[in-house]
Amino acid sequence: MKIANIILLLSVIFSLNIFSQDSNIAERLGYKKDSKLLIIHADDLGVAHSENSASLYALENSPVNSASIMVPCPWFPEIASYARKNKDMDFGLHLTLNSEWENYKWGPVSARESVKSLVNHKGYFFSSVDSLIASAKVDQIEIELRSQIKKALSEGINVTHLDTHMGSAASTPEIAAVYIRLGNEFKVPVLLDKRVFSEPMKLVKDLINENTVVVDEIHMAYPNSIEEGMASYYEKLLQNLSPGLNCLLIHTAYDDEEMRAITINHPEYGAAWRQEDFDFFTSEKCAEILKEQGIILVSWKELRDKITRAD
Amino acid sequence: MKIANIILLLSVIFSLNIFSQDSNIAERLGYKKDSKLLIIHADDLGVAHSENSASLYALENSPVNSASIMVPCPWFPEIASYARKNKDMDFGLHLTLNSEWENYKWGPVSARESVKSLVNHKGYFFSSVDSLIASAKVDQIEIELRSQIKKALSEGINVTHLDTHMGSAASTPEIAAVYIRLGNEFKVPVLLDKRVFSEPMKLVKDLINENTVVVDEIHMAYPNSIEEGMASYYEKLLQNLSPGLNCLLIHTAYDDEEMRAITINHPEYGAAWRQEDFDFFTSEKCAEILKEQGIILVSWKELRDKITRAD
Repeated sequence: MKIANIILLLSVIFSLNIFSQDSNIAERLGYKKDSKLLIIHADDLGVAHSENSASLYALENSPVNSASIMVPCPWFPEIASYARKNKDMDFGLHLTLNSEWENYKWGPVSARESVKSLVNHKGYFFSSVDSLIASAKVDQIEIELRSQIKKALSEGINVTHLDTHMGSAASTPEIAAVYIRLGNEFKVPVLLDKRVFSEPMKLVKDLINENTVVVDEIHMAYPNSIEEGMASYYEKLLQNLSPGLNCLLIHTAYDDEEMRAITINHPEYGAAWRQEDFDFFTSEKCAEILKEQGIILVSWKELRDKITRAD
Repeated sequence: MKIANIILLLSVIFSLNIFSQDSNIAERLGYKKDSKLLIIHADDLGVAHSENSASLYALENSPVNSASIMVPCPWFPEIASYARKNKDMDFGLHLTLNSEWENYKWGPVSARESVKSLVNHKGYFFSSVDSLIASAKVDQIEIELRSQIKKALSEGINVTHLDTHMGSAASTPEIAAVYIRLGNEFKVPVLLDKRVFSEPMKLVKDLINENTVVVDEIHMAYPNSIEEGMASYYEKLLQNLSPGLNCLLIHTAYDDEEMRAITINHPEYGAAWRQEDFDFFTSEKCAEILKEQGIILVSWKELRDKITRAD
């Protein structure tokens, strides 16, 4: 669901490699060319206290080494306060243009008049990316995304990267161009994979250069990928990780009252699901597999400083 | 704290009784003149899932018989959904112009440009009523309060009354005039007590008439009133209730992770405090005292339909 839209949009199209970026990110970071590099990344910080506290526990006590924050959400001040005091932690922004849960809502950071096309008749963001695309004006998306970045910076967050909630900021080539341009403007990497080199994405060609970080593979548990259980899915994934830069998107929260109420009627990415993510990544088993497989954890901060901000 | 400001403002001033309303509300409702009438009213619905679920439990299973909803809060959609399906329940609006907690925030329902004087540099409502008063333009308060009422009505809530979070909508005579005028406009009672007849409130004189409900006494537990324990405070209060129309403001929520995180660094009206309110009002002891004292529970809906909307 999270990045379902970008996958939906791009997975059907032929990868052209119009810009050939040699997969030498490992070497540029100082590792062997065929290293298995991995970012274990917690999405959705700021959405709930449950998400904040489970994710901070995981960041402090487990191999989970990066996370991104939803600026428009009610619990943003809690995570912003932590991030401001812990500038060495790896926090990016989970750029947000949707408010998908049934009984718990948020809307834009920008003045509503300037982003009218991004909100429904109740003043909240649309629930689905499809509704967003149907209504949104691209210049208004740019206003809102820039507002989110500026608000995070003004809170003192050391923003290491940008990614996007439900794939919304990369859901069409025109919107993806805004997303990538903002990364360039603020000199932070944005989560992209090789589909950015495909034909429909040619309009972003000029925005991609040697300072662009392009992930080799983005991984995430989908409802149909976890039939054998979440832990089993992750074990196999880590045991079969390909060399290159991998980014694994997870959602760590507790299966508590708050999270159950937020994710009501939505077992996918629901409270129990998020607890399973938390349980696996804070387990001994996970740490063992990473060691056994020689997986090297890299952070977005490292990528930002050594690739995006390289001279 | 909740109505601290109106009390602060008005308790120091001399009660003039410029408009003498005979205390015949009991008779107009069909009770004996010296009846002890009581509304047991839960504030702050919409602020949190914990507050919503504890308050709904209390409304369904205890003498708590009325509540009010904060429209700008993140959990408003949850309580709105319940209220829409339960139109016989007594829900008013807890008109909100402040966002007082440290790590969890909300802002106006109205377009931000139209209510600029009501928000701080982060786009949220001010934490304190003092900051609100220092910045707010009264016409912008009117815009925001009307937006909150209209949003609640458009959600299908059968609004039985208006009251105000932290006393903000009654914090100066000019703002109180807006508050009372909105009650008249939408034909719903607003929470007022006899201080409305005092000299500084003379500018609202023309807004008060025989359809106005004026409560004889508003009761609420304050930090200095609960030294002997919350249950003991409420027991004494109920055992010594005066005849007339009494309104007791309480805050029912669970002492859980969500509520503790919201009320962090603020034991007054914190999670444990709210749990104690919940525990007392859902206890057998509470029901027994009400019976023993012959206290008659009345709802705002009854007052709205028989007083405010009387021909």
